Parts: sequence; structure tokens; C-alpha cells
Amino acid sequence: MKLVTFSSKIETGDVKLRTLGTSVSAELLNFGVPTPGLLVSTEGKEDEVVSLSSLGYRSVRNIIEAGKDALEEVQAKVTNAPRFPMSRVTLHAPITRPPRIFAIGLNYQKHANESNMAVQKVPTVFMKLSSSVVGPDALIILPRISTQPDYEAEFAVVIGKPGYQIAAKDWQQYVFGYTILNDVSARDIQLATSQWTLGKSFPTFGPLGPAIVTADEVPDPHSLDISLTINGETLQKSNTSDLIFKVPELIAHISSLTPLQAGDIISTGTPEGVGLGRNPQRWLKPDEEIVITISKLGQLRNRTVAE
Amino acid sequence: MKLVTFSSKIETGDVKLRTLGTSVSAELLNFGVPTPGLLVSTEGKEDEVVSLSSLGYRSVRNIIEAGKDALEEVQAKVTNAPRFPMSRVTLHAPITRPPRIFAIGLNYQKHANESNMAVQKVPTVFMKLSSSVVGPDALIILPRISTQPDYEAEFAVVIGKPGYQIAAKDWQQYVFGYTILNDVSARDIQLATSQWTLGKSFPTFGPLGPAIVTADEVPDPHSLDISLTINGETLQKSNTSDLIFKVPELIAHISSLTPLQAGDIISTGTPEGVGLGRNPQRWLKPDEEIVITISKLGQLRNRTVAE
Repeated sequence: MKLVTFSSKIETGDVKLRTLGTSVSAELLNFGVPTPGLLVSTEGKEDEVVSLSSLGYRSVRNIIEAGKDALEEVQAKVTNAPRFPMSRVTLHAPITRPPRIFAIGLNYQKHANESNMAVQKVPTVFMKLSSSVVGPDALIILPRISTQPDYEAEFAVVIGKPGYQIAAKDWQQYVFGYTILNDVSARDIQLATSQWTLGKSFPTFGPLGPAIVTADEVPDPHSLDISLTINGETLQKSNTSDLIFKVPELIAHISSLTPLQAGDIISTGTPEGVGLGRNPQRWLKPDEEIVITISKLGQLRNRTVAE
Repeated sequence: MKLVTFSSKIETGDVKLRTLGTSVSAELLNFGVPTPGLLVSTEGKEDEVVSLSSLGYRSVRNIIEAGKDALEEVQAKVTNAPRFPMSRVTLHAPITRPPRIFAIGLNYQKHANESNMAVQKVPTVFMKLSSSVVGPDALIILPRISTQPDYEAEFAVVIGKPGYQIAAKDWQQYVFGYTILNDVSARDIQLATSQWTLGKSFPTFGPLGPAIVTADEVPDPHSLDISLTINGETLQKSNTSDLIFKVPELIAHISSLTPLQAGDIISTGTPEGVGLGRNPQRWLKPDEEIVITISKLGQLRNRTVAE
């Protein structure tokens, strides 16, 4: 299943009711209010979003916390829930405010090389603040005080249940699903001191989505093509098979130090090709379109804008 | 005012009611439930905690978010609220789960020297996870996987209202009060990679308290004695006048990068004398008592225990 957070676009009442059909009460429309949903694709038809608020869920995080049985309930009851054509809704980040985002530095061999940093024996873990998260199609605001804004395509794991000191072999019990993160980074701020968090946590620096794809749809998370384009030009292109520390090791390592929570994100790091590592270096400019594509997870598309 | 979070100790019903007097209904006792309160000291008498739950506040964070007017209301109405002698209550961290803890590295000149790290032109900011926070008198659990657990006495600022790109001259509008943090750090984990957060975020690694002292009681935050003892031996002793980046600059710097929230903690860094910088190096052992004292803020006392 592909879980999304959406809101219906605000229009005049007449248009809304004609679009949605008479079976949907006005109460369910939730105009502008982030609502949990399922993304449904049917061959030869526009994608649709099925609202899960009528099943009693207030948010995707709420569904994750309810555990895997909740997913079976959703699947059983979803047929009669109200549906919206994709063109009538706005997608938000699937989890609008993750409890925490653990991000991994230098986790593809070639990216570690281009950053001139030695590969570590243990994963390099830093926090990206949840306040930076925005959804698909949201604008990335390039802050005035940075001259080196950069992109990072990342494959991200969504934790499904709390755990401390998890054994690597038990990793699958703790994975709810997967999504895409753009770990936008102001390199001049990030590298002005030894600690990276604040240079990566400006508002809008964490595009996330478009959906959380549940783990059952991704049997092998270590065989996914990952790429990033700007205005159509491919700048990053790799495969998650190149990850140095793979998902089981990341879950075991982080949870050996601090308990994981349901809804936490582990963003597994970015492959080679970031602006910092290019010759000449390449920084984000206003009005560029960044598209990250990961097999089975879809596309995360965002435009840049000057502050 | 000194804001605390407390719970009444659980005893048999008879003892409770005798202790508290007949004016307190059983409903107000909230046994074991963290409750916001005011710490009141009267010369020659045991300290008392005044419960603020009867004024409609669920937590200290709730009071902070309600703004400075809430403090005046508290002061006006507090006389008739139920009081508990200190010996009948357990103190928790004044904010049990701060939204975020921004911690500053190397912010006392002598500590930067002992760590062999150059002083930066901008503050070095890292996150300490809120899940590490515990209260006064709570046990600090020394994890089996670290052989180098260490202490750090820190003067901490509690943010009172949200703000982005705050001018340094406006800093006082954003400070709710001050408290003490022990930034307990597993040096081997902290320094195994370049990023410090996880080595400082084990459960119980963030003792906080005993109270949040409101800003009006601390006219000059840059003239406070700060010291740390273990089993009575003084290991850190300094004054906040030695801070390299002072409170106005820290608020301006962090908020230039990410919006601050009410209840956020900025822990201003630790002075010289940590175990890492001593010769020979000195690591925490089980069953030691750590006491941090800061002028006007009281004492934060915690014992260590092996995992």
C-alpha cells in the first residue's frame, strides 16, 4: 500500500460536490486539512487518493502507531471509503512531522570519496530537524544567508514500532515502509563547524514523499535504482545495492544507542553526484526543478525559490 | 518563580490525607502523574511544591506556551492552590520532553583548549535527543557498550516563544527562564564518528532541573557560578562570564538557521574539567553522586548505576 497525507483543494462548494459525487458528505472533505489516505493507481486512469479519515485515522503516524493489524483493517474497509482524483488534492509529506529524522552521512562508497572523507567503521549518524519537512511539489526556499545550497537524493526507512537494542536479524519487524527524502543542505553552513544538523535543517530543506510504500511492496530494499535530476539533467544515479551500511545494520546500530519510535525516519545517505562533489561545484539556484526517482517508491518533485 | 514538574509519592490513602490536610480532594493528588508546580522556599521551613494543575495547566510546557501573562495569573492565584512538602513529592525534569535540545560545543575557552579543538567563529551546535531527559535524583544508567561515560555541567536556556531570525538585541523577549543540564556523554561513542548526537543521547543521559527559574529572577545570566562535584570532589568550577558565545548570540545564531519553539532548550556548553580533558582521564563509574550547582538555579543531583 502507498500511504499519503493529502488535503482537498479549496474550491467553491458546487464544484466540490459535482467532482466528488453525492455519496461524500461535506464533512469528509476536510478542505485544507491534512488527512491520511491511500494512493491508488489503475491502468489507464488518473491516480486516486482514498481517504482514511472515515476509518477513524487522524494521520498516517496514527496508522503506523496502530500497528500492522491496522493495515489489514484499512485494506479490508477501503473499498467504500471516499476517493478523490489526484488533480483535486494537494499531497503533503506522508508524515508531516516525523518524531525524529536520523540521517546517515557518507553511506555510498563513491559519495564518501567525492567528499574526501574516510569511510568509518560505524555509521555516521546526525539529526535533520523535523521542522524542515515539506511535501511533494512544495517549494524549497533557498535561504539568503547561504551561497551553497545543495541537493541529496536519499532512500528513507520508516520505523513501524518502538525498539531498543534491536538485533540486526530482527530488522524487518521494525520497518513499516520506505519513502524518499531530499536531504537539502547549505554546505557553507553545514561545514562552518564540525556538526552538520543546522546546515541541513532550514525550513523546507526536508522534502519527503510522495508516499510511504509499505514494506511488503519492497521485498529487497537493497536493489533499488535511485536518481536525481535538475531541470531534466541527471546529476545522481546509483542503486541502493551500493549502500555501505544496509538497513539491518543501521537499525541495529542506532537502536543500540537510543530507542527508536514508531514514525522515526532513517534516511540512508546519498550517492555520489551532489553539487559539493562536482567539478566545478554546482549550487542550487532559484526556479530549478529537482526530481528524485527511486524504484517502487515513485518520484519526489520540488522547485526551488529564493527567500 | 521556580517551575517544577512533580508527582506525589504513592502511599496508603490514610497517610496521604493526613499529610495533605482536608482541604485537598483526592482528585488533586495525581499520584505518580507528572504535574506542573511552583517550588516555594520559606526561611526555616521545608521547601514546598504548589500544584498548578488546579489552575488548569497540564504541564510546564503548557504554561510556557500560554505566554508571560500566564505567569502573572499563576502568581495571582497560587495562594489558594494545594501545597505539598518536598519530602512527599518526586521531582521530574521540569519539561519532561523538550521539543528540542540545542547543545553548544566548546563554548568555554578553557574547555575548548582541553579538548584540543580550535575555537570556531560561529557556535558549534548539535542536538541532544529529548528521549535522554530525566529529572533530578533520577539514576544515570551507564551503558554496557561504553567504557568512557563522562559528565558535563551546563547552564541551559528555556525558550519562551516561537521565533525565526531573531535579532540579538531582542533576545530577552524569547527567554522564558533558565535551568541546569548534565550533558552526559559516552566519549568513545561520541568521537567514533564526526557527529556527536548519539553518543550523548542514551536514555538517562540528559538530567535536567531541578526547576526552571524564570528570567526575572536572573537579571544577568552571564555572571553565574557553575560547578560540578562527584562524591564531594569538585571537578568543574567556572562562571558563565567565561562563555564565548553568550545567550543573545546563541539565540540569534540558531534562529537564523531554524525557527525556535516554545519549550526548546539551548544548553550553553560546559566549562573545563570534564573527564575527557583530565590527566589521567576520568570516566564515570557506577554508584557515584554527581551534583551540579549554578547560582540562582539550585542543585541538580544524580547517581550513576551500571546497565
